This record gives sequence, structure tokens and C-alpha cells, in this order.
Amino acid sequence: MTYCCGMLLRDGLVMIADTRTNAGLDNVSVFRKLRVFGKPGERVMGLASSGNLSVSQSVVSTLNEGIKNPETGEMENLLNAPTMFQAAQLIGRAIRHVHISEGRAPEAADPGFNVSFLFGGEIAGDRLRLFMIYPEGNSIECTVDTPYLQIGEHKYGKPVLDRAITYSIDLYTALKIGLISVDSTMRSNLGVGMPLDVLVVRRGAFDADLDYRIGPSEPYFRDLRESWSRALRAAQAAIPVPTYKTLSGRKLAPAILTDIDPEDALAEAVPPSPQQAAGLSPVKSG
Amino acid sequence: MTYCCGMLLRDGLVMIADTRTNAGLDNVSVFRKLRVFGKPGERVMGLASSGNLSVSQSVVSTLNEGIKNPETGEMENLLNAPTMFQAAQLIGRAIRHVHISEGRAPEAADPGFNVSFLFGGEIAGDRLRLFMIYPEGNSIECTVDTPYLQIGEHKYGKPVLDRAITYSIDLYTALKIGLISVDSTMRSNLGVGMPLDVLVVRRGAFDADLDYRIGPSEPYFRDLRESWSRALRAAQAAIPVPTYKTLSGRKLAPAILTDIDPEDALAEAVPPSPQQAAGLSPVKSG
Repeated sequence: MTYCCGMLLRDGLVMIADTRTNAGLDNVSVFRKLRVFGKPGERVMGLASSGNLSVSQSVVSTLNEGIKNPETGEMENLLNAPTMFQAAQLIGRAIRHVHISEGRAPEAADPGFNVSFLFGGEIAGDRLRLFMIYPEGNSIECTVDTPYLQIGEHKYGKPVLDRAITYSIDLYTALKIGLISVDSTMRSNLGVGMPLDVLVVRRGAFDADLDYRIGPSEPYFRDLRESWSRALRAAQAAIPVPTYKTLSGRKLAPAILTDIDPEDALAEAVPPSPQQAAGLSPVKSG
Repeated sequence: MTYCCGMLLRDGLVMIADTRTNAGLDNVSVFRKLRVFGKPGERVMGLASSGNLSVSQSVVSTLNEGIKNPETGEMENLLNAPTMFQAAQLIGRAIRHVHISEGRAPEAADPGFNVSFLFGGEIAGDRLRLFMIYPEGNSIECTVDTPYLQIGEHKYGKPVLDRAITYSIDLYTALKIGLISVDSTMRSNLGVGMPLDVLVVRRGAFDADLDYRIGPSEPYFRDLRESWSRALRAAQAAIPVPTYKTLSGRKLAPAILTDIDPEDALAEAVPPSPQQAAGLSPVKSG
């Protein structure tokens, strides 16, 4: 499993990826999933992968060696792609090349030909862009409405992103929220683990602002995890306990089956419960 | 989709279920998924379902009509099962009955024969128990180590449970945390929605302490959602922004491909990044 998330913001781009790779629970290792490509002053790109490691590594190796353009004969790679869109298309072509060359082999042995990429960055003359590229090689692009994309185990870490990420937040605040999102994911899924690779790109810089690996004992991230746990406990404790009036001393109608009730099934609002129907309304006190 | 969660605690049992059922995004309706069965003073049981609605309703109808015991000829149902374990086994048998009678029909048209149940409660003479029953009819039982079980869309709401639910917390605090868990799930998955059904059973009471439907405009739950959002924003804002030293003014080595590095791949701790290798170490300031 994997968790990678990319955020496209007013000020730039943030990408985060974990490094845990496993072939079963009994074969766990560390592999880099976030790779940075660039020509300082001209372009900077981050490519994060999830899915079958042999497929994602083959795609990256194919990109490194370049793909021959059938019309011009030129070898195309990420460092000579004229725009981010064409670079994203090139990644899609690399995925399809690997699919053709490795054919059905991964599908036979494995959960299948399973690979996704987040690809973000900026090339001089083009705008800063972030894409998610699917196993079929097609892609979607991140926009201001939902300024983040995720691949891999995306569910555990999504609520905090949904609540906190907006297009206008500061880059390092976004990095912080992204790290909280990764922390939530790591707590619930053993397939996502430390160390983490992070990339921060400031719009118009054509270079990485931060290209860093956060290790297991890194003090900032350790403090973030502890602070967040503490804050969640405090937040939860600060919410009052529900004061629904209890049914203590009241009795259920004998041998009832609180069951499929046609009115219940169609109700859009609060239908009467069987207790209410039996004059034993559980009401909110106070 | 569905989200149901059950918690087995020192003081009793809490069960929560949403009510949204959908056949595609264009056919959404409200169905009760948490049903309460009981004979006051003798037994109380909650049964929450997820999966194919036709299957779960057929299982419940089969349970209501009773299943003939081939040895004794007696009609067995949830109200005459001698123990919670035998009641859980009866539900398993009902699932298998439906599987046999409806055969391959659901599999042909649908994602398949897909149903799970949470089943909790207490029968006089037995202890309070909580089971998760699988589509195959087998089950697992909740224990003190992880005092909750979930069915349906369990991922979004799991982090808060992992952090806050312990065996010894108060029943209504557990209900509160469960409602936070449902709130997180509803925000991220449209397949989970209001109203919510909740059941609270106090150990040894053999009756529901609370059997209640929370509607969309219910004041306590609305306040809980707002307080939790506010508290999360505050918690997030209180964590300092990372102070990793940025690379501004530094340059990536020309045209590097930060790529698969054998040392990197094997590193357990923080390996040098390409910047570090090039003497451009991104270090933490302060």
C-alpha cells in the first residue's frame, strides 16, 4: 500500500509520499515513491507513484531512457517535454509501453497491472499544474475547487484535507496539514509507513523550495503527531456528552421486532420510533 | 454504501447506523439498517446491516419467520435463542439460507451476494456480546483489546475510534465519539447519510437505554458537527508550521533525476537526499 498526496495552491505545489512497500505483510521494505526531476530555473517536477512497484519502476525507467516520437524520431523525456500537459501525456505513454511490454505477466501473478501517478510541477512558459495519471495512461488535472489529489490509501487521510485545504492557504501550512493526513493514514493502515518524502515548489521558482526526507525520529513530525493526538483528545473532550433522554425505567413493548416499517423506509425526516409509536418517546432532555 | 459501528464497553453496548441506501447515485433513499429485538427484562439485541439491501432484508425476514431446527423441529428465532453466540450462529444460518434460495441471482445483476451484520446484545444468563457476521455466515466477536467493530464504509471514521475508544469509557461518551466517526464518514462519502439510528444498552438492564433516531435537523448532532469542525480547525492552527530550512536561493544539480538509488531503497532511516549528496542539505532550522 501507499499514500501520496499532492496539493496545488495559489503559492505553489506540495507533494508528500510515504515509502513503505510490501509484498504481503511478511515482506515490507522502504522504496522511494516521490521522485523529483528538474532543470533549475527552467522546470521542476515531482512524480509520486502507487501500485505495483515493478510497474512504477519500469515506467520511471522508461521515462528516464526516453520514448521515441514516431513522427519526429526525437527521444522524448520529462526534461525536454515542452509543457506539463505533454509531460503528463508522456507518462501515460510510458505506462502503456510498460503495459504492452510486460503484457499480462503482472496480471497473472498479482492483483494486476495496477499503477497510478501524481505528477506536478512547472515548466517555464507553462503554468504550475498537478495531474493524476491512471493505469490506463489517461489523466485528470487538479483545479482550484478541490486543490488536492491523492493516490493509494486515500480514505483515512481525506477528512482532514476536506476540512482544511483551500487554494489560498500558505504552502507550509498545507505541508503541515498534509503531514497530519499522512499521520492519520499511518495510524490506521500498516501498509503506509515512514520515512516520508516531501516536495515543496514555489510558483515561478522553477526549482524545489524543499526536497526532504522525514525520518522516523525527525523531531518536527514527532511533535506534530503528538500535538495532533493531544488536540484531538481535547477537542473530543470539549464536546458535551449527548443528553438524549434515556429509556431507563421504561420498557420496550414485549417481544417487539423493531423492523422494516414502510413509513420508516420512506421517511426523509425523523420518523417515529417504535417506542414513540408505543408512547415511549425517547426525547432530548433540556 | 453504509456505515455502522458497534462498541462493546465495560458499561454496555453502543450501536450506530446510518440509513442511506443507494442503487447508483441517482437512486438514493432512506432505509433502517439498525433493528432492535428484545423481550424486556430478558434480552435485548441490536442488528445492523450493510451490503445488498435485498439480501439483508431477506435475512431479517428469514430470522423473523424463524428457521426450523432439523433435529428438534423447533422454529428458532432471535427471541428464543438461548445465548448470544447461538443467536449469532442463527443469523449465519439465515444468511446461508438466503444465499441458497436466492442463489446466483444477486451475483448476476449486482456487485454480488454482499451482506455483513453487526449483532450485539445481552440475554439473561449470558454475557453482553458483540459480533460481526460475514457474508459466508461465520463471525468474529468483539473483545476488550479493540472494543469496537465496523461494517460498511469503515475507513474515514476509523482514526477517531482508534484514538478515543477504550473499553472503560462511559457509554454516552462512546456514543459521542461514534457520532464524530459517523460525521467524518458522511463528509467524505455521499453513500452514508442522515438520519442515524442509535442504540445504547446498559449491561445487565436487558432493555434499551436509548433507541433513537437522529434526524438531519437534530440540535445535539448539529452542534457536535459544528464543534468538531471548529475544534479541528483550532487544533490544526495550533500546530506550528514546519520550519524545515527551505532551498530558496539554492539550486538543484543541473538536470538531475532524483531517482532510484540502491542505497535509498534499502535505507531504514533518513538517507541523504540528492541535495544533501550535492552539499545542498535541507536541514531543519532552529
